[in-house]
Amino acid sequence: MKIAIYGYGNLGRGVELACRNHGVTVTGIFTRRNPETVVSYGAPVYSAERIYDMKGEIDVVILCGGSATDLPVTTPALAKDFCVVDSFDTHANIPTHFAKVDEVATKAQTTALISCGWDPGMFSIARTYAGAVLPQGQDYTFWGRGVSQGHSDAIRRIPGVLDARQYTVPKTEAVESVRKGENPTLTTRQKHLRECYVAVAEGVDKTTVETAIKTMPNYFADYDTVVNFVSVEELKKNHAELPHGGSVIRSGETGKCGEHKQVIEYSLKLDSNPEFTASVLVAYARAVHKLNKKGDYGCKTVLDISPADLSPLSKQELLAHLL
Amino acid sequence: MKIAIYGYGNLGRGVELACRNHGVTVTGIFTRRNPETVVSYGAPVYSAERIYDMKGEIDVVILCGGSATDLPVTTPALAKDFCVVDSFDTHANIPTHFAKVDEVATKAQTTALISCGWDPGMFSIARTYAGAVLPQGQDYTFWGRGVSQGHSDAIRRIPGVLDARQYTVPKTEAVESVRKGENPTLTTRQKHLRECYVAVAEGVDKTTVETAIKTMPNYFADYDTVVNFVSVEELKKNHAELPHGGSVIRSGETGKCGEHKQVIEYSLKLDSNPEFTASVLVAYARAVHKLNKKGDYGCKTVLDISPADLSPLSKQELLAHLL
Repeated sequence: MKIAIYGYGNLGRGVELACRNHGVTVTGIFTRRNPETVVSYGAPVYSAERIYDMKGEIDVVILCGGSATDLPVTTPALAKDFCVVDSFDTHANIPTHFAKVDEVATKAQTTALISCGWDPGMFSIARTYAGAVLPQGQDYTFWGRGVSQGHSDAIRRIPGVLDARQYTVPKTEAVESVRKGENPTLTTRQKHLRECYVAVAEGVDKTTVETAIKTMPNYFADYDTVVNFVSVEELKKNHAELPHGGSVIRSGETGKCGEHKQVIEYSLKLDSNPEFTASVLVAYARAVHKLNKKGDYGCKTVLDISPADLSPLSKQELLAHLL
Repeated sequence: MKIAIYGYGNLGRGVELACRNHGVTVTGIFTRRNPETVVSYGAPVYSAERIYDMKGEIDVVILCGGSATDLPVTTPALAKDFCVVDSFDTHANIPTHFAKVDEVATKAQTTALISCGWDPGMFSIARTYAGAVLPQGQDYTFWGRGVSQGHSDAIRRIPGVLDARQYTVPKTEAVESVRKGENPTLTTRQKHLRECYVAVAEGVDKTTVETAIKTMPNYFADYDTVVNFVSVEELKKNHAELPHGGSVIRSGETGKCGEHKQVIEYSLKLDSNPEFTASVLVAYARAVHKLNKKGDYGCKTVLDISPADLSPLSKQELLAHLL
C-alpha cells in the first residue's frame, strides 16, 4: 500500500514513522510550505498541489491538518480524487463533516474515513462496544495524564508568557470510585486537575499571570489548577515530550435487579500522543484501501470497520490465533 | 427480536436475565431435562425437540451448552434451521468448529456467530485492535481474580473433597511490569497464582489432599498454589458467586527506533461471569439478526462484526454521540 501524507507537523511526522512500523510505503509528503525547507525522516517532500500529478502512485492520503479550518475544506476536496483518512476531532461538527465527505466520496467512488485516532477513534470504539454489551450502565471518560496542546496554547497567549505546558490529570479518587462501580456523579472539577508549567519573561508579575490562568473561562475556571513557574530551559528539558492517554470506563449492572456490577475499562498510556494517533491512522488507511478494492465507497468512521477488516491478518490466522 | 435459549445452566439463566436488560423477548427455554422440573425467571420452558415447532417465533437461538461435547454437535445441527450464537471456547478447535458451522449456515442461508463471550469474545476483539494499531509490540493476557470452574471441578474430583472453589489470581508484580511497558518474559508461575478453598469430609487427611492439588499436572503443578481448608457452610456463604475478569495488555513501541512506549489495556471486572457472558451473547444475537435480514449468511465471529453493527443505536446517533 502506498500512502501520501498531506500536512507535515507533529502528526504528519508521526505518520511517516508509523508507515515504517506498519511496513507501508510513503509515496510523498505534501506540504503548503516551501518543500525545500521541510526536512523529513526520508520520504520525498513535494508542494501540496503536486499530489494530483502523482495520483497513480497513491492508494490513500492521510490528512494531517487541523480540525478548526483545515480538514473541513481539504478532506472533501481530496476525497474527489483519493481515498482519504483524517483525524477530524471537533466532536460537535462530526455529523456535518461526515455528510460533506460522504457526498463527495460516494459520487467519486472513493473511500473516506474521518475522525480517526484515539478520541475520537479508539475511545469511540470502546464506548460503542461497552454500551452495546452492557445496556444498563454509565460511561465515564478520563483524559491524561497528558499534555493538552490547546490548553498550553491558551497559556502562551497571556502577555508576558514565553512558553507553557499544560498537563490534564485525572483525579485518582474519581477514577477509583468509577472503577469500583460506585457510579458517582462527578463535576468537571472532580474529574480532572490542570497542572501547568509556565515560563515568563523577566520582570513579569507571576501573581497576575497565575490569576489570568486560573480564571480563564472554558479552559481553567471550572478546574482545580496548579501553576508552576519554571525556566524556558526546564520546559525544554523536562516537558518537551507529548505524552497522553486516558480511560473509557463503563460501569454496568446485570442480574435480576442489577445486583451484579460489571466494569469494562479501556485505557491508553502513551509516551507520544502524535505517534500513537499516527499509528491508528495508518492502520485505518489499510482498512480503507481494502474496502475500496471491495467496491465499498463513501464516508466511513472507525465504528463501520470490523476488527477483521482492520487487521492485517488473514481470516484463517485470526480464527487460529487471535480469537 | 425473539430469542430462544437452548440449554439452561448458569449461562442460560444469565441469558434469560440479559434479554430483559437488552429489551429482547424470550420465546422459550429449550431443555433436554424434563421441562416441568426447570424453574425459569419467567420464560416458558419446553423440551429441546419442540424448538422446531416454534421456528416462526424465533429470530436467533442462543446455545448455552458446553464446548467439550455439546456445542460441536448442536451448533451445526441448529444452524440448519435457525440463526444461532454460541460461546464455543476451546481455542484450539475454533477453526474446525467454524468450518462445520459455516458450511451448514451458508447452505441454509442462516447466520451463525461462534465463540462469543469475553475470552474468546471481547478479549479477542481487544487483541485484534491492539495488534492492528500497534504492529511493533507484545500481547499479554491476565485472567482473574475470578473463579475457574474447570479448576474447581478438578479439585472436587479428588477423593475426600466435598466441595471446592478455585480463584485464578494475576500476580500484581507481573501486571505492573507489563503496564509499565517493561515487556517482561513471564513463566506460567510468574503470571498467575491459584487460590483454593476446599471442604473435605471428616477424617480425611488434609496434607494428602493439599499435595494432590498442588501436584496435579496441567491444572496446578506449574503454578504457585495456596490451599485453604474451609467448611462446606463457609464455601456456600462466602464463595457462592462466580466473579471473574482480567486484562488484555499490548505494550508497543513507536518512533524512530522504538523510543516511545505505548500501552493499551482492556480490562474487565465482573461480579458475575455467566451474566456478563450472557449479556455479550444477547448483544451479538441482535447483530446476527441484523446481518441475516441484510442477506449476510454463513458463520461469523466477533471479529467480523463492526461496532456499528453491534450497536443498537442508529448511524446518526453514533455519529452525533458515540464518536
